[in-house]
Amino acid sequence: MPFQPSVLTIQFPEWIHPFLRRYPAHFPSLEARMSLVIEAARLNVTNATGGPFAAAVFETGSGKLLSLGVNLVTSAGLSILHAEMVALVLAQTKLGSYDLGGPGLPAHELVTSAEPCAMCLGAIPWSGVRRLVTGARDGDVRAIGFDEGPKTAEWRAELEQRGIAVIRDVERDAAIRVLRDYSLGGGTIYNSREQG
Amino acid sequence: MPFQPSVLTIQFPEWIHPFLRRYPAHFPSLEARMSLVIEAARLNVTNATGGPFAAAVFETGSGKLLSLGVNLVTSAGLSILHAEMVALVLAQTKLGSYDLGGPGLPAHELVTSAEPCAMCLGAIPWSGVRRLVTGARDGDVRAIGFDEGPKTAEWRAELEQRGIAVIRDVERDAAIRVLRDYSLGGGTIYNSREQG
Repeated sequence: MPFQPSVLTIQFPEWIHPFLRRYPAHFPSLEARMSLVIEAARLNVTNATGGPFAAAVFETGSGKLLSLGVNLVTSAGLSILHAEMVALVLAQTKLGSYDLGGPGLPAHELVTSAEPCAMCLGAIPWSGVRRLVTGARDGDVRAIGFDEGPKTAEWRAELEQRGIAVIRDVERDAAIRVLRDYSLGGGTIYNSREQG
Repeated sequence: MPFQPSVLTIQFPEWIHPFLRRYPAHFPSLEARMSLVIEAARLNVTNATGGPFAAAVFETGSGKLLSLGVNLVTSAGLSILHAEMVALVLAQTKLGSYDLGGPGLPAHELVTSAEPCAMCLGAIPWSGVRRLVTGARDGDVRAIGFDEGPKTAEWRAELEQRGIAVIRDVERDAAIRVLRDYSLGGGTIYNSREQG
């Protein structure tokens, strides 16, 4: 008879609370939103809690921060815990709904330090966010050795078809610096197994 | 100052334990593996714990069941909890590793009642499974109204390039029946917001 646990518990890094305490509840500009995210990506590396990626969900209009996620693949031991997934899960937990675009809710956006991999791209339409804001490009991520997975080249058009606007290159240089510093520091590049 | 929880807890449905108790620990044939998964997809609907999808991780060689996942989007309130994601998370929790293909481990496979959506497809290369076995085709899923998301048409080649074999149409007719019964029963089709 096979066995499996009936509950799964995911612990978030301890440095996140004191980090968030330094910030206000609202972030008026896109640059302010992205700067929070990029700083979290940097701290995720220096605290050794995961890869150089962070993401956050905001109310688009008011700039209210709903959730902050960082990449927890190595520390939680779960390959799906990319920063975007963590941010979406935390935002949906907070609102008590699997649809951040549901009736009666303000519009939400996902702000991410780098363009999403194939998995996170696929998660975005199911989440209910209405806008994606990105820092580094997927080519910048590939440049330090990460694979972005089986991702369609038409990904921005595919999101827009589904009512999700895309704004890219926000604070891109600062986002690239976090990736480069991670690479220069010898950070783990966990990847799929490319053939040939 | 923004706030977010420091722990996330996901509860799995109560019917899974008594259901698994009816089965042996090992499933020799692909048909036996898929039949377990399809039956779980059906029970997920009749128990009202989620959509008509299930997936499981097996040791490819021995057929040992490592984990069984079902779609928990509506019951857990989290859009990323597709069956494949749940199965992968449970398998990695059991092995204590984010890489099911890591050194010293036997080869693992993901058996899923339907071809994966864009998100679950993207999750597969990061998980470390070396084979994907599917029942219903993505066109069968679309036929009852689900969107499969921004998924590349070249998805099988993309997986194979990453060392992941794909075997499709295993017990496809039985898998389609679960989808059709869900649709005829008026099951929720939660989707992205298609424009125009």
